[in-house]
Amino acid sequence: MSTTVKVNGFVCQDPMVVNADDFFKAAELDKPRDTMASKVGSNVTLINVMKIPGLNTLGISLARIDYAPLGENPPHTHPRATEILTVLEGKLYVGFVTSNPNQLFTKELNKGDVFVFPEGLIHFQFNPDYHKPAVAIAALSSQNPGVITIANAVFGSKPPISDDVLAKAFQVEKGTIDWLQAQFWENNHY
Amino acid sequence: MSTTVKVNGFVCQDPMVVNADDFFKAAELDKPRDTMASKVGSNVTLINVMKIPGLNTLGISLARIDYAPLGENPPHTHPRATEILTVLEGKLYVGFVTSNPNQLFTKELNKGDVFVFPEGLIHFQFNPDYHKPAVAIAALSSQNPGVITIANAVFGSKPPISDDVLAKAFQVEKGTIDWLQAQFWENNHY
Amino acid sequence: MSTTVKVNGFVCQDPMVVNADDFFKAAELDKPRDTMASKVGSNVTLINVMKIPGLNTLGISLARIDYAPLGENPPHTHPRATEILTVLEGKLYVGFVTSNPNQLFTKELNKGDVFVFPEGLIHFQFNPDYHKPAVAIAALSSQNPGVITIANAVFGSKPPISDDVLAKAFQVEKGTIDWLQAQFWENNHY
Amino acid sequence: MSTTVKVNGFVCQDPMVVNADDFFKAAELDKPRDTMASKVGSNVTLINVMKIPGLNTLGISLARIDYAPLGENPPHTHPRATEILTVLEGKLYVGFVTSNPNQLFTKELNKGDVFVFPEGLIHFQFNPDYHKPAVAIAALSSQNPGVITIANAVFGSKPPISDDVLAKAFQVEKGTIDWLQAQFWENNHY
Amino acid sequence: MSTTVKVNGFVCQDPMVVNADDFFKAAELDKPRDTMASKVGSNVTLINVMKIPGLNTLGISLARIDYAPLGENPPHTHPRATEILTVLEGKLYVGFVTSNPNQLFTKELNKGDVFVFPEGLIHFQFNPDYHKPAVAIAALSSQNPGVITIANAVFGSKPPISDDVLAKAFQVEKGTIDWLQAQFWENNHY
Amino acid sequence: MSTTVKVNGFVCQDPMVVNADDFFKAAELDKPRDTMASKVGSNVTLINVMKIPGLNTLGISLARIDYAPLGENPPHTHPRATEILTVLEGKLYVGFVTSNPNQLFTKELNKGDVFVFPEGLIHFQFNPDYHKPAVAIAALSSQNPGVITIANAVFGSKPPISDDVLAKAFQVEKGTIDWLQAQFWENNHY
Repeated sequence: MSTTVKVNGFVCQDPMVVNADDFFKAAELDKPRDTMASKVGSNVTLINVMKIPGLNTLGISLARIDYAPLGENPPHTHPRATEILTVLEGKLYVGFVTSNPNQLFTKELNKGDVFVFPEGLIHFQFNPDYHKPAVAIAALSSQNPGVITIANAVFGSKPPISDDVLAKAFQVEKGTIDWLQAQFWENNHY
Repeated sequence: MSTTVKVNGFVCQDPMVVNADDFFKAAELDKPRDTMASKVGSNVTLINVMKIPGLNTLGISLARIDYAPLGENPPHTHPRATEILTVLEGKLYVGFVTSNPNQLFTKELNKGDVFVFPEGLIHFQFNPDYHKPAVAIAALSSQNPGVITIANAVFGSKPPISDDVLAKAFQVEKGTIDWLQAQFWENNHY
Repeated sequence: MSTTVKVNGFVCQDPMVVNADDFFKAAELDKPRDTMASKVGSNVTLINVMKIPGLNTLGISLARIDYAPLGENPPHTHPRATEILTVLEGKLYVGFVTSNPNQLFTKELNKGDVFVFPEGLIHFQFNPDYHKPAVAIAALSSQNPGVITIANAVFGSKPPISDDVLAKAFQVEKGTIDWLQAQFWENNHY
Repeated sequence: MSTTVKVNGFVCQDPMVVNADDFFKAAELDKPRDTMASKVGSNVTLINVMKIPGLNTLGISLARIDYAPLGENPPHTHPRATEILTVLEGKLYVGFVTSNPNQLFTKELNKGDVFVFPEGLIHFQFNPDYHKPAVAIAALSSQNPGVITIANAVFGSKPPISDDVLAKAFQVEKGTIDWLQAQFWENNHY
Repeated sequence: MSTTVKVNGFVCQDPMVVNADDFFKAAELDKPRDTMASKVGSNVTLINVMKIPGLNTLGISLARIDYAPLGENPPHTHPRATEILTVLEGKLYVGFVTSNPNQLFTKELNKGDVFVFPEGLIHFQFNPDYHKPAVAIAALSSQNPGVITIANAVFGSKPPISDDVLAKAFQVEKGTIDWLQAQFWENNHY
Repeated sequence: MSTTVKVNGFVCQDPMVVNADDFFKAAELDKPRDTMASKVGSNVTLINVMKIPGLNTLGISLARIDYAPLGENPPHTHPRATEILTVLEGKLYVGFVTSNPNQLFTKELNKGDVFVFPEGLIHFQFNPDYHKPAVAIAALSSQNPGVITIANAVFGSKPPISDDVLAKAFQVEKGTIDWLQAQFWENNHY
C-alpha cells in the first residue's frame, strides 16, 4: 500500500491527500521548557520532519532552546546541518571549534544577536548568568539534522566503547573511563 | 588581490584570517521594527550572507518579521529557499498556493505555532488583529534566499512590464494596469 | 508490490523491466496547438516525468509553446527550474524580473534566437505580431519544473485568497479584488 | 580586478552590470547547418555557457543538430548531462547502451517525437533516410555538458593512446589500431 | 511491506533493524584474483551498494583491481563517479582523455603513487611489466558508480548497434564491424 | 591575476595549462609510517585537494593509516565525508556511534575486510594485537573531508573551551578538566 512508502526514512506525502496540517505544528515554542530535569541545565525542542511531515526533502528545521541559570547546551555536532541562532531572552556564551587545526571561536551574545555554527563542527552554548534563564531560537539546514552530544556519544553509547580505546584517546586511566561510563548520560532533546 | 575573490557573488573568507566576527551579527532581532512606514504594514529584517559573511555556502538565513495590526507580508516567493516560521507575538493568518493546480493551503497561527512554506511557492502572512501587532521569526534554507513580492515585481519593476502583456494576463483594461503601475511599490525588506 | 514504489512522487522504474518506451513519447511536438481556446492566446505542451517515466531524477524536461497573434505566455515562475528557449516560428518579446531590486530585463527575439530565464524568477513571452502566430521550444532544468501562473495563483486559487490580503497587497479596493476573483482563470498548460 | 574572477572556469557576472544580453544569443538555430564537411554527416550547434555567460551555474543548455541523408551523430557521451531531444525535420534512428550489462535501447523517431538519453551513457542518432536531411533540437542538463565522441577520443586523442592498450581492448592487431589512429578524427561540434 | 521499499533502486534500511553487518563486507580484498580468465588480463572487484547495503546514499565505493603481466583495465568510463587509485603492487601506465578537445594525459605509476580520473572521462590502466602482476586499490565517488567498458558497450551490446552506424563512426568497412561484433566481449568486473 | 583565483579556498586549475601532474602524487602510500611519535599509536597520511590540486570539486580523497600494536585512530568525525576502509595488514576493531540514540556499532576486521563509517558520525579504529602493526587504506567522499579528533577538539583547542562548560558536559570536577587541558594534544595526521 503506497501510504507506507518512505523517502529518507519518512512517509512520503501523497500529493492528492496532502493538506495544510502537513505543514503545521502547534509546537508551543512560546512556552518555557523545564530545564531542571536536565543535568546540564538545558532543554532543546526540535521541530523536524518527524514533527512536521511536510518538511521532507525541504532542508530546514527549527528549535527552541531553554537554558537554566548557568545551564548549557553541551558540546555537540549536527552531522547534516549548519545552525543559525538568535537569543530571545538572557545572554549566551557560545563557541565552535574548527577542524585542522582546532581553533576555538567564541562570542558573548545578548538578546537579538545572531550567530552561526558551520555544519559538522563541535559547538556549545552556555548561559553565564547565575540567576536568569536564557532562551534561543535556532534554525538548522536539514529537515533531519541529527545531533551528537559529544560526552554522551563517547561515554554513554549502548553498548559502551571499549575503555582501552577511550583511555588512550583521552589520555586517562581506564578506571576514569569506567567511572565516566557508569554515569547517567541523558539527552537534553525532548 | 585575493581578498576580492568572490564565490556566489560574495567575498570568500580567507581561512587564515577568518574569526568569530565573521559568524556574528548584533542584529537586534529582539527590537520591534517600525511598521508604520510600510503601506502593507510589515517589516522584514533578513540576516543573510550580506549581513554575516561566514554564512556563504552554508545554506541558511534568519529573519524577524513585524506586523502592524491588520498588517501583512504580502504574497511573495523565495526563488531559492523553503521557509519555516514561528509566531513570537500575536496571531497570524498564513497561506501558500500550490502549483498545478492552484490550491490554497491556509492556517491560523497562534503564539508558538510553526508553519512551513515550500520552496518557490507564493505565500503570505496576515495579522488579523485590529489592535495588536504580531512578530514572527522565520528561517530560510539558503544564505541568499531572494524575495519576489508579487505585486511589486509585476507592477513596480523598473522599467515597467508592457501594459499589453499585463492587461491580458490579469484580464483588465490597460488603463487599470497603467494606474497600478503609477502607484508607489515599496519593498518591506529593510 | 514494488511497482507502486515512488521516488519524488513518481513510479520508480524497475531496472529489470525498463525498456526504450520508458524514455520515449510520441509527443507530436511538430503539430501546431490550438491557441484560440485560451484567453491569453497561448498553449504550452510540457513533456515532463509524468509523460516520460524514464525522466525521473534526470533533471530535465522539454516543452513546445504556441502563441496566437498578440498571444502571450503570461507572467509565471517555475519554482524548481531554469528555462532556456529558442524561437521556431515568428517573433517574441520576452522578459524577466530580478529579485531585490525588481529590475526588468527584456529582449525581442527573432527565429533562431536563444534566451534564458533564471530559476524562480517571474518571466513572460509575448507575440507582438498582429497577424502571425509564433512557436518556441523551451527546455527546463527539472523533470518536474512546476509552473505558477501569477495571476491565476493570486486571483484564481481554490479556495480564494482573502480579499483583505490581496486588496492591501495590490493597493486596490476589495471590490476590485472580488471582481478579479470572479473571473475564469484557466491554465494554458495542456 | 574582479572582472576576471571565474566560477566553474567561466567569468562570473557582476550583478551590478549584468543585463539582458548576458541571457541572450542570436544563435540562428533556425538556419540549416552544413553537414557536407563532416565525414559522419552531422553538425552540432551547442549553445552553452561559453555562448551565453548568464547560463553559469543554471544547469541547462540547448543544441540544434543537423543530419545529412544517412548522416549520424556518432556514439558519444556527455560526462555531466542527461539529454532530451525532439525531431524537427525528417526521421532519426536513436539508441543508447546501458552499463552493467550492455543492453542497447533503440527507437525510430518521427517528427515531433521526444527521446531521453540518461547522463553519461553512450548514445547516437542516425538519419536512415537516403535522400532527406533531418534536424533535431536537444537540451542538456548542464551549462557545460561536455561531449566525448567515442571513436575520436579512443583513436584520435593527442597524443595517441598506446596501441598496445587499444589492440588488447578492441581484440585487433596493433596494425589495425595504427591504421585507425592515422585517420583524420574531426569533431562534428562547431 | 516496507522492507521492499527502494531508494535509488536499492532496499532502504529500516533504522530500527539496521546493524553493523549492514556496513560490513568480508570482501577478501587482500586475496589475489584470477586474471587468466580475462582476455584483457585484469579483474575488478567492486564493493558497492549491492555488496554493502548501508552504503546507499553515502556516495562512495571501493575496488581492488588485479592486472596480469601486460594486462590492462581497458578504456572505460564511470558515468556517475570520479576515481582515485593507488598502486599496491607492481607498476601501472595510466591515462585519461579530456573532452573538447581530446587531449590524453598519462603517467607511469609506481607502488604507492596516487592518480585521479575525473568523472565521466575515458580512462585506462595498463601493466607494462612482462613478468610481474600489478595490484591497485581504487575508490569511486558514488555508491553505484557504474562502468562502461568502451569496446564492450560499442561492439558487444545486446542487441548489437547497427553496423551502418558503427562503420561510419569508426571509419571502417561494415565487414570489420561485423567481425568485431562477432567477438566475445566479456566484462572484467566480477 | 587569474592564477590566484580560488574555488572552495583552493586554486582553480586553468584548463589551458592543466596537465597530468595536477592529477598525480608520488605519495609513497606503500611505505610504513612512523607510529612511535604518536601517543595514540597511529599515523594518517591523507591525500586530499591540498596534495593533488586536480581533485578540486571532484568529491573524493584517499588515505593510508598505520597503527602501532595496540595503537588506535581515536574517536573522530569527518564533518563533510563518509569513509570506506579496507585492512591491508593486521587486524582492526572498529566502530561508530549513531545519533539519536547513541548506539555503538562495532566489528572486528581481518585483512581484506571492508567497513563503512557514515558521514559526520563519531568513529574509531583500534589495533587489538599486542605485537603486530596494522595498515588500512581508507577513501573519503570529499576532496577536503576535514577531521575532528574529539578529545583534541574538546580538550586541546586554542584557546581552550571554558572549564565551566566542559565540567558540566562531562560530569567531572573542573580540576579534572584543567588537568586534561594541560596535556599535549597532538594530531595524528601528517
